[in-house]
Amino acid sequence: MPAPIEFYFDFSSPYGYLASTRIDALAARHGRAVNRHPILLGAVFKVTGGVPLASVPLKGTYSERDMARSARLLGVPFKLPSKFPIPTQAAARLTLWVQGADVQGAKTLASALYRAYFAHDRDISDPAICAEVAGQCGYDRAQALAGMNDPGVKEKLRAEVESAMARGVFGSPYFIVDGEPFWGADRLDHVERWLATGGW
Amino acid sequence: MPAPIEFYFDFSSPYGYLASTRIDALAARHGRAVNRHPILLGAVFKVTGGVPLASVPLKGTYSERDMARSARLLGVPFKLPSKFPIPTQAAARLTLWVQGADVQGAKTLASALYRAYFAHDRDISDPAICAEVAGQCGYDRAQALAGMNDPGVKEKLRAEVESAMARGVFGSPYFIVDGEPFWGADRLDHVERWLATGGW
Repeated sequence: MPAPIEFYFDFSSPYGYLASTRIDALAARHGRAVNRHPILLGAVFKVTGGVPLASVPLKGTYSERDMARSARLLGVPFKLPSKFPIPTQAAARLTLWVQGADVQGAKTLASALYRAYFAHDRDISDPAICAEVAGQCGYDRAQALAGMNDPGVKEKLRAEVESAMARGVFGSPYFIVDGEPFWGADRLDHVERWLATGGW
Repeated sequence: MPAPIEFYFDFSSPYGYLASTRIDALAARHGRAVNRHPILLGAVFKVTGGVPLASVPLKGTYSERDMARSARLLGVPFKLPSKFPIPTQAAARLTLWVQGADVQGAKTLASALYRAYFAHDRDISDPAICAEVAGQCGYDRAQALAGMNDPGVKEKLRAEVESAMARGVFGSPYFIVDGEPFWGADRLDHVERWLATGGW
């Protein structure tokens, strides 16, 4: 069984959202599974000195245009949220809480959280909103809220962020395919070619 | 006659180099000309707070790998220069000096300067090296050196940088197609689709 594609993303990353709508079909075309790793880009940026796209003059303006244009090209619903960027601890912890018991469920939940934020402008930095999305995915809201506060889940997120940086992850989305790193939604074409050819 | 593609680039930009090897054939497929605008990313970064890729932890390491990998995929010779990044006033001024009299010649020269730096590790921050490349392209070396010091050419470069920022340019390569901005060598696929469809 070939290794899964490691998929690192932050729930506040528009390009992470766009990539998340493509990665599973892409992986399936090449007989690969996808390991989802929600991370906190804010924690990564503290180490790398990175800054959120939106806060860079000129680049921020361009990026808003590019995100919307890229979403239209993919046929993916997208609206820049009224609060952007946001802290994503709640969404990441909720995903890890579900993932501990149900990997497939965590994929469905992560997609629902991304859509809630980038298609429906729901503020998923709010644990109550995250629990609501969990409810729509069939989980118990009260248990979901408790899961986000579980010390083991919090520790798991800290470990995911540490491990991501140790593997060189500095942005979102970020993919590792058989040890080869790819950054950005616009590198999925290279990811696909890498899977098809074994590299070049 | 449809509007030319406006192509902004810095001579120290690896992705500018990669894009420069593709843009003319792409433009020709859609009956477009290409206007080359060498700019100084250092001057732009002073305004936007941007930083050279190579200086960002993790991102710098990844980028070196991605540049080489992208070049191999395109079949373009590439070797990260021993001095990188470099100031690019000399190369930009030389290109503008030639462009003032010979647009086609400036394209050939710009390609030769890029290749000298990224394929043959020649330090094109040195006006003497730039003049040597000009000589290989059929220009008189002494005249080329004088051209780089021409106050009118220096002023033209300052104006290009100002005008680029006024149009929103914050990185290299950067393309404007019928008013629509595209940043990055990996946006050439969008550029091509935009030209083919008139936008989406």
